[in-house]
Amino acid sequence: MRKKIKVKSDMSRGQDAGTTGKDSKRLAIRRPNPAAGNGLFDRRHLLGAAATASMATLISRPAATAAGELAVEPWMRELGSPFTGYGQPSRFEAKVARIWTSVSGTTGTGASRTPHHLLDGTITPSGLHFERHHSGIPDIDPDAHRLLIHGLVKRPLVFTLEALARYPMVSRIAFIECGGNSGALYQKDPVAGGVQALHGLVSCSEWTGVRLADLLDEAGVDPRAQWILAEGADAAGMSRSVPIAKAMDDAILALYQNGERIRPSNGYPLRLLLPGYEGNMNVKWLRRIKVTEGPTMTKDETSKYTISLPDGKALQFVFPIEAKSVITRPSPGLAMKGVGLYEISGLAWSGYGKIAKVDVSADGGKSWVPATLQEPVLAKAATRFRVDWRWNGGPAVLQSRATDDSGYVQPTRARLIADRGMRTIYHFNGIASWAVGENGEVTHVYA
Amino acid sequence: MRKKIKVKSDMSRGQDAGTTGKDSKRLAIRRPNPAAGNGLFDRRHLLGAAATASMATLISRPAATAAGELAVEPWMRELGSPFTGYGQPSRFEAKVARIWTSVSGTTGTGASRTPHHLLDGTITPSGLHFERHHSGIPDIDPDAHRLLIHGLVKRPLVFTLEALARYPMVSRIAFIECGGNSGALYQKDPVAGGVQALHGLVSCSEWTGVRLADLLDEAGVDPRAQWILAEGADAAGMSRSVPIAKAMDDAILALYQNGERIRPSNGYPLRLLLPGYEGNMNVKWLRRIKVTEGPTMTKDETSKYTISLPDGKALQFVFPIEAKSVITRPSPGLAMKGVGLYEISGLAWSGYGKIAKVDVSADGGKSWVPATLQEPVLAKAATRFRVDWRWNGGPAVLQSRATDDSGYVQPTRARLIADRGMRTIYHFNGIASWAVGENGEVTHVYA
Repeated sequence: MRKKIKVKSDMSRGQDAGTTGKDSKRLAIRRPNPAAGNGLFDRRHLLGAAATASMATLISRPAATAAGELAVEPWMRELGSPFTGYGQPSRFEAKVARIWTSVSGTTGTGASRTPHHLLDGTITPSGLHFERHHSGIPDIDPDAHRLLIHGLVKRPLVFTLEALARYPMVSRIAFIECGGNSGALYQKDPVAGGVQALHGLVSCSEWTGVRLADLLDEAGVDPRAQWILAEGADAAGMSRSVPIAKAMDDAILALYQNGERIRPSNGYPLRLLLPGYEGNMNVKWLRRIKVTEGPTMTKDETSKYTISLPDGKALQFVFPIEAKSVITRPSPGLAMKGVGLYEISGLAWSGYGKIAKVDVSADGGKSWVPATLQEPVLAKAATRFRVDWRWNGGPAVLQSRATDDSGYVQPTRARLIADRGMRTIYHFNGIASWAVGENGEVTHVYA
Repeated sequence: MRKKIKVKSDMSRGQDAGTTGKDSKRLAIRRPNPAAGNGLFDRRHLLGAAATASMATLISRPAATAAGELAVEPWMRELGSPFTGYGQPSRFEAKVARIWTSVSGTTGTGASRTPHHLLDGTITPSGLHFERHHSGIPDIDPDAHRLLIHGLVKRPLVFTLEALARYPMVSRIAFIECGGNSGALYQKDPVAGGVQALHGLVSCSEWTGVRLADLLDEAGVDPRAQWILAEGADAAGMSRSVPIAKAMDDAILALYQNGERIRPSNGYPLRLLLPGYEGNMNVKWLRRIKVTEGPTMTKDETSKYTISLPDGKALQFVFPIEAKSVITRPSPGLAMKGVGLYEISGLAWSGYGKIAKVDVSADGGKSWVPATLQEPVLAKAATRFRVDWRWNGGPAVLQSRATDDSGYVQPTRARLIADRGMRTIYHFNGIASWAVGENGEVTHVYA
C-alpha cells in the first residue's frame, strides 16, 4: 500500500513537473525519462510502477462510481438478432464514416478520408480506408480481368487472377498515404478541421499477394530497363512510373486486404502495393505493367504529384513518404470532458523504415516526453503511440514528433516551409498542433 | 542465365524428390532443409535462389500466356461508382460469407464460421469473424451500457464506456478459437466438409482496449480472491470463471477490433479478451466482473466446455488453446486446376505463445518440409504458413503440424484420441488431413 500511495502522490505532482525546479528534479530521479511540461507522464514509469490504482483519482469527473445494482437492460430481456453471412458495425456507430470531397460536377473524382479520431489500433478497417479516385470505382469482373506484363521483357505475359492466385504469396502490414495528405497545412493560416479532414488520407492494412519481382523474373527483364509503368483499369487509366529497383525490392501485387479480397474502392481485384511510396503509385485495379527504359511521364506524375518550389522549379518523383506522425486523440471534434487524466494517442509512419521514437509535447514543443510505441513496430507500417496526460484545465498545445530508424526527425512546420515553400500541396510531414482551450475545445493551430 | 536454368531443372526434379534416392541426395546438398516427398519444396531455398523465373513453367496449364493487346473492358469506358462512407466487398465476392448452424427453433443460438479457404493473410475481416451466440446478438446502446466490477474488492466500481475510453489503451493481434472448433474430428468417420465447416470457429483480429489489471488494481483486489466471474449482457447471460492470474496478466477489456469499435456480433461495445484462452471465456457484451474466491461453476463451464473422458471423469477448466494448424489452401471446395505448382497455405496458432515451426506433408505424414512462417510471428496470434508444392496429378494427403515455442508439437489425431477418447467435442487440435484425388477433388480424410 505504501508504494501505491507514494506513486499516486507523485502523479499528482506530475502536472506541475517542468524541466526545472525541485519537483521535476525529484521526478527525474524516479523516472528514466522525466515527464514533460503541462502534465505529460512517461508511461514506462507510470505503469511499470503499478501506479494505475490511482488513475481514476486523477480523472476528476469520476470514471468509476460506487456500484449498486446494475439495471437489466432491454437487450437482456429478449433474444438478440440472428446470424448473418457478413457482419456490419453497430447502428450506434453510423457516425464512424469516411467524408469526401469530389471535383465539381463529378461523383467519383476526389478523395475520401479515414476518421482516425474515432479509431484505435493500427489496422484501418477496409471499409474506412481512405480513397483517391480519378474517375470513380470501376465494377470489375474478376474473371474478365487480366494483368499484362510487357515492354522490355523477353516474354510478355498475361495473367488471369486464377493464375496469379497459384503463385507463392507474402503478407505484410503497410500504410498507404496520399501524396496530398495534410496538404492544407501548407496554407498561410490554419484551416479549421480535425484529423480526418486534414490528415485522413493515410490508412494501414495487412496486404497479401504475389511478389512483383517473381513475375518480372519470369517475364525476363531486359538489362536496359530502369523503370516500369503501372496502369489501372479505371476510366482515368491512372498510371505511374516506378523505378525497377523498387519493383524488384518489395513491391507486391496485392489480392487480399485485411484477410479478404481487396475491396473495389481499394483496387479490386488487384492492386500494386509499393510499401512506403506515395499513395497513387500503389496503382489500383492494376491491369498493365510495362517495363521501360525511362519514366513514362504520365499526366499523373507531371501535372500532379510533383512538388512546386518557390523558385519555379519542381521536385518530381519524390516517392517515399517521410517520417510523420499525428495525434488522433484528443483532436478537434473530441472535446475534453473535464480536467484529469487522458491518454494522448496517435499514429506514426515512415516510408523509409520503422518508427524509432515518437515524442509528444503538451506545451507547443517546449518540452517533450517519449511515447510508448505499440509493439510490434513494423517497417513502413503505421505505429500506434500513446502517452498519459493530466489536463489541468488550462491551455495546452499538443504535438507529436516522429523519428524513424534512419535517424530522420519529423520537422516543424516552419522548418518544412522554409525548405520547400508553400506552392505545393504534396508531402507535408511537418509537426501538426492541436490547441486545447480552457473550455475543452480542441482546435487546429500553428505553433 | 546458367543459374536460373540450373535451378529450374532442379525444380522439375523436385516432384520426384523423396527422402531417399539419387535425386533427393543431390537436392539435399543444395537445400538446407531438403524437400519432402510428393512434390514439396522448401521456399527458403526456392526463392532464395531466385528460382521463380521458372515458376510458370511448372504450372502446366500456363499461368501466363503470350501477350497481345489487352481488351478495353466495359468498366474502362464509363465513370465508376461514387464515394461511400463505409465500403463493402465486391459484388463478385458474395460467396465469401460465414455459414452457420442454429439450434432447432432458434435463430441466434449456434455458431457461424469463417471461410478461411477464401481468405489469406492473418487478420480475419471483422465481418467474417466466427460467432458463437447463446441467445443472439444484443442491440446494445453504448450510452446505457455499464461495466460493474464488484465482489472481493475494496471499491466496487461502475464504468461508462466514455470513462473507459479515457484509460490507457493497449493493442494486440490475437486469435480467438471456440473450444468446440474442429470437434467433428472426434467422430469415428471423417465428416464431409471443408476448412470452413470443420475448422471455421477460429479467427484473428487486432484488439485494442484497457488492461483489466489496471481496473482491478483500481478497485483493490482482496488477497483472498483467486478468480473472477465475467458475465455478458446477452439474454443468455453467458458467463465464465477466469483465474485472477490471467485477469492480471494479459486480459484486455476490448473496445476496438481491427481499428474500429467492436461489431455487435463480436461483443459491441465491450469484450473481455483473454489471449490464447478458449473462445467463450472471451466474454462478449461484457457487463460484469465479479471478483471471487473460487470459480462460480456457471452453466457455461459445467454442462458445456468441459471435456468428458472415456472413464466418465471430465477435464474442467482447460483454458489455453493448444498448438494447432490447418491447411486452408488447397482444401475441400477448392478443386485442383491441373498438375503443376501450387502454394500450400494455412494458419497456425497456440494459446501458449508463439508458433515456432510448421511442418507440411504431402504424403500423409511420411515426410515433412518446414513451411515459411509469415513475419511477424506474434504470441497467441494466427501465423500464416506457406510452402510450395508441385502436384504431379497423383493422389496426395496434405497435413500440417505446428510446434509452439514451448516445444509442444501438435499431435496426430490418433495420438490425441488415444489420450482423450471420443466422448467430447472440445479442444480438438490433432493434425487434420486433406486428400487430393487424381480428379483434383480435395476431401477430408483421416490419415
